[in-house]
Amino acid sequence: MSTATMAAPPGARRLHTLRCQGGVPREAGDDVADEVPVALQYNGISHAVMLATPLDLEDFAYGFSLSEGLVDRADEVHDVEVEPVATGIVLHVEIASRCLARLKERRRTLAGRTGCGLCGTESLEQALPRCERRVAPLALGPGALSRALDAMRARQALQSATGATHAAAWCGARGELRLLREDVGRHNALDKLIGALARERRDAAQGFFAVTSRASYEMVQKTVRAGVGTLAAISAPTALAVHTAQAAGLCLIGFARGRDWVAYSATEQLTLEDLPA
Amino acid sequence: MSTATMAAPPGARRLHTLRCQGGVPREAGDDVADEVPVALQYNGISHAVMLATPLDLEDFAYGFSLSEGLVDRADEVHDVEVEPVATGIVLHVEIASRCLARLKERRRTLAGRTGCGLCGTESLEQALPRCERRVAPLALGPGALSRALDAMRARQALQSATGATHAAAWCGARGELRLLREDVGRHNALDKLIGALARERRDAAQGFFAVTSRASYEMVQKTVRAGVGTLAAISAPTALAVHTAQAAGLCLIGFARGRDWVAYSATEQLTLEDLPA
Repeated sequence: MSTATMAAPPGARRLHTLRCQGGVPREAGDDVADEVPVALQYNGISHAVMLATPLDLEDFAYGFSLSEGLVDRADEVHDVEVEPVATGIVLHVEIASRCLARLKERRRTLAGRTGCGLCGTESLEQALPRCERRVAPLALGPGALSRALDAMRARQALQSATGATHAAAWCGARGELRLLREDVGRHNALDKLIGALARERRDAAQGFFAVTSRASYEMVQKTVRAGVGTLAAISAPTALAVHTAQAAGLCLIGFARGRDWVAYSATEQLTLEDLPA
Repeated sequence: MSTATMAAPPGARRLHTLRCQGGVPREAGDDVADEVPVALQYNGISHAVMLATPLDLEDFAYGFSLSEGLVDRADEVHDVEVEPVATGIVLHVEIASRCLARLKERRRTLAGRTGCGLCGTESLEQALPRCERRVAPLALGPGALSRALDAMRARQALQSATGATHAAAWCGARGELRLLREDVGRHNALDKLIGALARERRDAAQGFFAVTSRASYEMVQKTVRAGVGTLAAISAPTALAVHTAQAAGLCLIGFARGRDWVAYSATEQLTLEDLPA
């Protein structure tokens, strides 16, 4: 909700509003985050529609495909084309034919399901796939966490303008901010980050994820699948997120604010000399 | 993340954590919000699985059924049974047979789709159903908004214990808090509130909704479908939420904090004497 006179940044638009401060209303412009239906088509087959911020959509296509397990590696995504249409945006994703077979198999087993909240699942058994442990938590250097959080605030252009978006960042062991993505949805922001890492062929295990949101089950699941060993969230985790992180050996940190934080799992990885604060 | 020594409140559990304050880590207990897979079965047919707070699940069954348009009225829900199972909770919902026919039709047209973010939709045309205007915004009395927000804070038991949950409340024109529901998901909290209103046969139009979250498209859509004319969110709206609210004649207020707020649509309904601050 920036009041600056500059144009709205990419992913936002300027709207006329009635703004009240201290009980005094007046007409004012306000930058509001875009939220657009984004349809994912795999090799010409419609798969899903997400509401997302219309930025970094190639990253989103890669990250969504990886997080959902539709592909195992970035090089199984052969092409992504972004097509704006009247009602939203279509992402045309070309994936390896062996993955397409998997997608078709999955679609067949999902016939007749609607799927809310958990993609395409209708039974509880399907709802929580096991997260196998992938990588060890990163040993964080002193001050890494607060340094990373400070750096994130300075780089959240869309959040700064609109107050409506989450960010996910990949940071090094000393807290250096290497990659950041924003979206109106926290899951989308993390998927975009994961996609960007994959597209740049970075070794994700050599950094940790920091997110401006809460840590729910799905955030932990995406982090484990991405091969990252530490997830730091600014807000609270859920009990299921903690349980999943414990089972996967992920170091899950919540309420990360400056030098304060709470570690919920794999705390034995945090030695006193490695403590993030 | 309460540090009190009382037992964790319903919907939360006490976990052992490593808590760091001012750079000094120590072992500490922490109340963490439960997040449980909840499967919705309609007349014996699996429909969807949501991750939710395991409280007020009868309200959730009613509200979800109404918000998703599976039923039009509360009396079309004949029975709700909550069955805890090893992997989560099953909600057995019995709906009128005419609605079941609609559900089956919907399932048939959804065959083979997975559906992410927007239930069961795979094409952009399906993604954003039109919200017809239902009711006029409520004329709010002076101070109604800040009074409602203050009252909400005092009633968010789970948020107070865990810091992980959202709340949705139904408040009267003078800001009196009448109903409140909490959930780890903001959509679930609103669905629970809508279900509670329906179960109590309240005239939803005689109040406004206040939510502790952002206002995305789906929050506006649920509000309009519930027959409520004003939605006040503590955080930012998205551009699509504003557009939808404008089209539906909904008064959408964002950044509602004390006497400050920003009105994005139907602002002509806010006369100076009715101003919420």
